[in-house]
Amino acid sequence: MRIAITGAAGFLGQMLVTALSARDTLALNGEPRRISAIIANDIAAEPLDRLARLRRVHALPGALSAPATLARLAEDSPDLVIHLAAVVSGQAEADFDLGMAVNLHGTVDLVNACRAMRRPPVLIFASSVAVFSCTANDTITEDTPPAPRSSYGTQKLMGELLVRDATRRGFIHGRSLRFPTIAVRPGVPNRAASGFASGILRDPLAGQPADLPVGRDLRLHLGSPARALDHILRAAALAQEALGGEPTITLPGISVTVGEMIDTLARLAGPETAALIRPAPDPATEAIVASWPGGIDTPRARALDFAPNADFAELLREHMDRRGVAAA
Amino acid sequence: MRIAITGAAGFLGQMLVTALSARDTLALNGEPRRISAIIANDIAAEPLDRLARLRRVHALPGALSAPATLARLAEDSPDLVIHLAAVVSGQAEADFDLGMAVNLHGTVDLVNACRAMRRPPVLIFASSVAVFSCTANDTITEDTPPAPRSSYGTQKLMGELLVRDATRRGFIHGRSLRFPTIAVRPGVPNRAASGFASGILRDPLAGQPADLPVGRDLRLHLGSPARALDHILRAAALAQEALGGEPTITLPGISVTVGEMIDTLARLAGPETAALIRPAPDPATEAIVASWPGGIDTPRARALDFAPNADFAELLREHMDRRGVAAA
Repeated sequence: MRIAITGAAGFLGQMLVTALSARDTLALNGEPRRISAIIANDIAAEPLDRLARLRRVHALPGALSAPATLARLAEDSPDLVIHLAAVVSGQAEADFDLGMAVNLHGTVDLVNACRAMRRPPVLIFASSVAVFSCTANDTITEDTPPAPRSSYGTQKLMGELLVRDATRRGFIHGRSLRFPTIAVRPGVPNRAASGFASGILRDPLAGQPADLPVGRDLRLHLGSPARALDHILRAAALAQEALGGEPTITLPGISVTVGEMIDTLARLAGPETAALIRPAPDPATEAIVASWPGGIDTPRARALDFAPNADFAELLREHMDRRGVAAA
Repeated sequence: MRIAITGAAGFLGQMLVTALSARDTLALNGEPRRISAIIANDIAAEPLDRLARLRRVHALPGALSAPATLARLAEDSPDLVIHLAAVVSGQAEADFDLGMAVNLHGTVDLVNACRAMRRPPVLIFASSVAVFSCTANDTITEDTPPAPRSSYGTQKLMGELLVRDATRRGFIHGRSLRFPTIAVRPGVPNRAASGFASGILRDPLAGQPADLPVGRDLRLHLGSPARALDHILRAAALAQEALGGEPTITLPGISVTVGEMIDTLARLAGPETAALIRPAPDPATEAIVASWPGGIDTPRARALDFAPNADFAELLREHMDRRGVAAA
């Protein structure tokens, strides 16, 4: 089978392409399949060139807004499309038009390209728990009605609805995954409002100071990059019938306070590392992040075998192992 | 103030333009205002020419997908935009692309035109209770999470989300109204799946037979055209603060079975009129309409002074009076 990945140059995209390239088979829609090709799409050409050196990986540079990119993708007729391309929350708030272009219209155009494929592909759409909001960083459930308070969350929710309708109509076999805040993100900070959740761990572990824009009591619904990867593969494997007409899945995560995160960092990497975190309250970030749920109960996702990290220490160790940082 | 109406050639649009032309003032955003101009937009040119003979009414023919139409609208900078243009449910199900073009992209383009206006206008977006679904024609509440089972309902829900986010960002003062099924619609049948709710009343009253595609026990959440008009004016009058950040309003209606509708028709217009209704079960229509709620509790809308019809007889008499049909 052929697999196409949008946003392949992003951190999750690169991990996914690398992991798929190392495998020979993948379960799709309830059946094991041989992987014959991986098409890595992104607007950033340089990381794609690097990825294209991996076995079975082919680079498809170009924006989803470019008809030529979509025509190539439709012609290629992948069996599985993993749609990661997105403008993150802080940037979608700063530039409404860019967020609409990528997060909404990019998704609409991709679904239309899927309709032009030889057979309906499985489409995995990366959504976010930013579709939810709550009054005071509360714990909610996967059945809580979404009520986004950001353009990013709004655009992701609109995309979910399109994926849901296109699945009902048989254009695609859609699965929308509402990802928890993913930490620890490697590389340079992006413009996600939740970026500090990675920054306060990643930067001190690299010996750099990190600003903490929110209070220690704020709770986050978190998942590690490796968990996110597992969830994508699990979503691909699911038989469509298992979704019962509702292809949107709120993924489980671990609920942890910023204070607990810092204390775990001090325990695993030493107090001098944790001391590199400096309080730098930022009302704009606090306003966005505090309207996100601090925890989410997800019995449906768990029954579908989506599992969260064991605890925050596991999540932090995953990053330390990847970066070769020795525990204190 | 200047008022722009999209879909002005539709039945509700024509009623609205006519009613506004007869008034001198209208409450907008909590304050009484003088009406100086009414811009009637539609793709159907002929009814617009007729409307343009009314005082203060100006025709703006053209699709919302045409940049020239939107540029004219933005340049005109109305204080109130009433967005009625839509592809109805049966048609949006039959032609996915047309539904997306008008119901989603038309709304996105109109919101963008509003951003180019001199000041943020009040935008009233006509949505529908088709955003809801339920298992067995149940009674739901305005807090029930939307879960559309039609492309029409999906596209309307996506439009609501955009209006909500654009309102939060201050681009517009948005109000999305989820209209009940509107009956009795005058004129020729349209392609709404709910069209029979008007047809089984309108056609027999005109001496014509009418097909009944659903069973007598099916319940509908109904409102009359005059009520729909009142609700639009009420939504315009509301101060933005009254909406508390949630600009989507599920409108109240009366909950009535098809059997009660037919019995009331027999009582007011005579049994020989009701006898013109012929059972003609249509599984496609039944499947769409039975997934709509049979009744909706709307305490928030009622607290905001949106009132439903008194009963079904009032709704039927409104049509008989307008058509000059004598009661039996």
